[in-house]
Amino acid sequence: MSDDDKTYHMELEAFRQNAYRTVDWVVDYLANIESYPVLSQVEPNDIRRQLPAEPPAEGEGFDAMLRDMSDIVLPGITHWQSPNFFAFFPANSSPPAILGEILSAGLGVQGMLWATSPACTEVETHVMDWLVQMLGLPERYASHTDGGGVIQHTASDATLCALLAARERVTGGQANKAGGNGKLIAYTSSQAHSSIEKACMIAGIGTENLRLIDVDENYAMRPAALDAQIRADQAQGLVPFFVCTCVGTTSSLALDPVAEIAGVAESHGLWLHVDAAMAGTAAICPEFRFINEGVESADSYTFNPHKWMFTNFDCNAFFVADRAALINALSILPEYLRNQATESGAVFDYRDWHVPLGRRFRALKLWFVIRHYGVNGLQHHIREHVALAQDFKQWVIDSDEFELAVDTPLNLVCFRHRDGDGVTEAIMQTVNRDGGMYLTHTRLGDRFTLRMSIGQTGTQRRHVAKAWEQLQAAGRAAADN
Amino acid sequence: MSDDDKTYHMELEAFRQNAYRTVDWVVDYLANIESYPVLSQVEPNDIRRQLPAEPPAEGEGFDAMLRDMSDIVLPGITHWQSPNFFAFFPANSSPPAILGEILSAGLGVQGMLWATSPACTEVETHVMDWLVQMLGLPERYASHTDGGGVIQHTASDATLCALLAARERVTGGQANKAGGNGKLIAYTSSQAHSSIEKACMIAGIGTENLRLIDVDENYAMRPAALDAQIRADQAQGLVPFFVCTCVGTTSSLALDPVAEIAGVAESHGLWLHVDAAMAGTAAICPEFRFINEGVESADSYTFNPHKWMFTNFDCNAFFVADRAALINALSILPEYLRNQATESGAVFDYRDWHVPLGRRFRALKLWFVIRHYGVNGLQHHIREHVALAQDFKQWVIDSDEFELAVDTPLNLVCFRHRDGDGVTEAIMQTVNRDGGMYLTHTRLGDRFTLRMSIGQTGTQRRHVAKAWEQLQAAGRAAADN
Repeated sequence: MSDDDKTYHMELEAFRQNAYRTVDWVVDYLANIESYPVLSQVEPNDIRRQLPAEPPAEGEGFDAMLRDMSDIVLPGITHWQSPNFFAFFPANSSPPAILGEILSAGLGVQGMLWATSPACTEVETHVMDWLVQMLGLPERYASHTDGGGVIQHTASDATLCALLAARERVTGGQANKAGGNGKLIAYTSSQAHSSIEKACMIAGIGTENLRLIDVDENYAMRPAALDAQIRADQAQGLVPFFVCTCVGTTSSLALDPVAEIAGVAESHGLWLHVDAAMAGTAAICPEFRFINEGVESADSYTFNPHKWMFTNFDCNAFFVADRAALINALSILPEYLRNQATESGAVFDYRDWHVPLGRRFRALKLWFVIRHYGVNGLQHHIREHVALAQDFKQWVIDSDEFELAVDTPLNLVCFRHRDGDGVTEAIMQTVNRDGGMYLTHTRLGDRFTLRMSIGQTGTQRRHVAKAWEQLQAAGRAAADN
Repeated sequence: MSDDDKTYHMELEAFRQNAYRTVDWVVDYLANIESYPVLSQVEPNDIRRQLPAEPPAEGEGFDAMLRDMSDIVLPGITHWQSPNFFAFFPANSSPPAILGEILSAGLGVQGMLWATSPACTEVETHVMDWLVQMLGLPERYASHTDGGGVIQHTASDATLCALLAARERVTGGQANKAGGNGKLIAYTSSQAHSSIEKACMIAGIGTENLRLIDVDENYAMRPAALDAQIRADQAQGLVPFFVCTCVGTTSSLALDPVAEIAGVAESHGLWLHVDAAMAGTAAICPEFRFINEGVESADSYTFNPHKWMFTNFDCNAFFVADRAALINALSILPEYLRNQATESGAVFDYRDWHVPLGRRFRALKLWFVIRHYGVNGLQHHIREHVALAQDFKQWVIDSDEFELAVDTPLNLVCFRHRDGDGVTEAIMQTVNRDGGMYLTHTRLGDRFTLRMSIGQTGTQRRHVAKAWEQLQAAGRAAADN
């Protein structure tokens, strides 16, 4: 064998067998997921100190890697796919999504331009159009209009892109050329996600130029307060240009009154962006479509199929009513990317719809999820999650020990112990340390508040009921101390 | 069966069988990849018109999805994993990378905080430290110093983060608060990647405040021109703050003289960022480590294992010498993300190292690639790619019909036909349309120039030799017309 033929690549038959074993490992993992503590119990550096300090000079067999997955990695995993995971927000996944991800990895294409793999772009555009129909979103987000949808990494990225499109629209393209001027003012509610603040930092708007508008007793933005603030800023010679409104805040799932906010935004000529990161999926059920009220007036809209639509991360869906505004803000065309399809104008080149140039074939997993479940199947499971949360809410209401912090119409229940913040926090520490469930907290009305977020793929009534028992037991133990 | 038990989820045994079939599909695809035209031959809308206009109400079986992959998707794929793919840059993948991606999808964890899956953060930090050793990068990028590495989506994202860290350092954190002021000036070469310009747009610096420094006959930045421009800008009361230098430009793989540029940057107090997106991998071979000269003085450095290190997209490696500067630029800590591990200061929370909040377990695939190949195996294949490019270069030099456009020390050959741009462009159109290979172009010295980029996983001597025959044949046909 000449040196030219020497190879260190894994041969295809070995790959096939190793991939089968990897699939088996994943199936075993998912089958046994309830046997692990949901929140990883390791201490800092527990994982690293088991790994060799130096990279291997010679290659290792796959046995060693799979063994390390079980022995070293698994104890350091917080099990987001556990049915007992009620922390933060769901990041649910499903078998069809994983199958799509395998194919995406196997194809290994770059979808930066239509020409660099037309199917990568066209399936994505198509599935985004399906989402418009499935969720009852306004037709102007569909690709046959002036708008369209694109997959972004996260809602943070989508919001940044919306902000940039708005910035370029209001400055007539000047900000891209001349940079920031410290005069542009953005608005969101005091309960909005940190990504809005981060986007304002990144885009050179500045956090001092982001107004956090006051909220009502349900933690939803007050449109009158927004209107007053915009007028005050205009009176100062500043340039209001962007409102980000939340359909389901991260903290408490508060629903901003989008229709009223849209009226304010429109009257002052502001770009309206709607962040429905987690809650957006609920609109697949007609009875929850009240969350779309007012969205027909928004310039852009985003939600995460990688949160509550059984599609593994990353898969954010971002829609704009005027794709030219987005592309004007983000387009760059160097010589080495020129090609006939692009110059014909007949295709979408998604590199101009977001920050990065490269992109993988993420639409496959979403396509498979929608096809596997069908709209009916997705509706069934979303309804189930909401029903479980509503039951949990009722248990809290009926309890002598706990109380609701705020009402919620969907799948997040915010509640606390009646004996105060100390007991509430102790309950959280206890149940998370015990490992049978995992939930996280927020502050509402300056009270330490537990968040029971229900949306994991495998979560059923028994998991929620067991969680409630654990919380009650921890509450009694804490109150006794 | 009560409605409560009803499920549309794919059962685990069905998932296992479907995953085996998906693996078989990928193995078949890779085994037959040379049988497809490298550049997809479809026309706009050819894929979409085969897809149902409406999403399915009822779920479909997996057979239909795999069939559509073969019948509808494959014709719309441009085969980046083909050994006959010589376009743009490599985006090579490998079996161990795909196995890591399967596990990442199966685990479905969010690594935004250390606490949300400690292994996701610790394996990443560890593998980044391995890269520092493997590539001979300066120790100050290793996590035991004040620096550290992180996986980003793409070099575009890494460069944006470097720019933001530099922006905040020079303004003492004021830009994040007050927004841009139009006075900050960034520098790169006239040959730099479009991502630098895009980052300046996004970050509110403005393209008018990005100076494209003149290059020498090898298309490398002239340090004296950089120094002169910085002085001229300072004399105007502007604030030079950032230099992005390229170790291997996208257009022609020109290597900027980093050591000299570092001297200029340091003398004026500028942040130096090194973009080695594709070429960086070459440093795994000691004989190519000349590309690291001067990098020890850089504030940040990035390269893409997802280009030339057999790791499927996305996997960009980004290093900083002063992680506090990066975190200061990007950190946000809302109440719902507070946790004990973060407040102890003993852990990295990677959400503060980049734009998005969420992140998947991308380190697994890189870990597997390094372990499968070992440093020796990676060196072997990188050497092989460079040797093939050097052979191709010699064929061009020895040819009466073609000529080199610029010398290159690594794996990209820029060349053209001696009969002028029309013939050169016709050659490209012919070979790409024929489908046996795919290459793209750039402009150098205002001449239409072909780029033969060699770095695909499966590319061997026979593929490069066949490509040369096809190019010569197309050249003769074009010259005869």
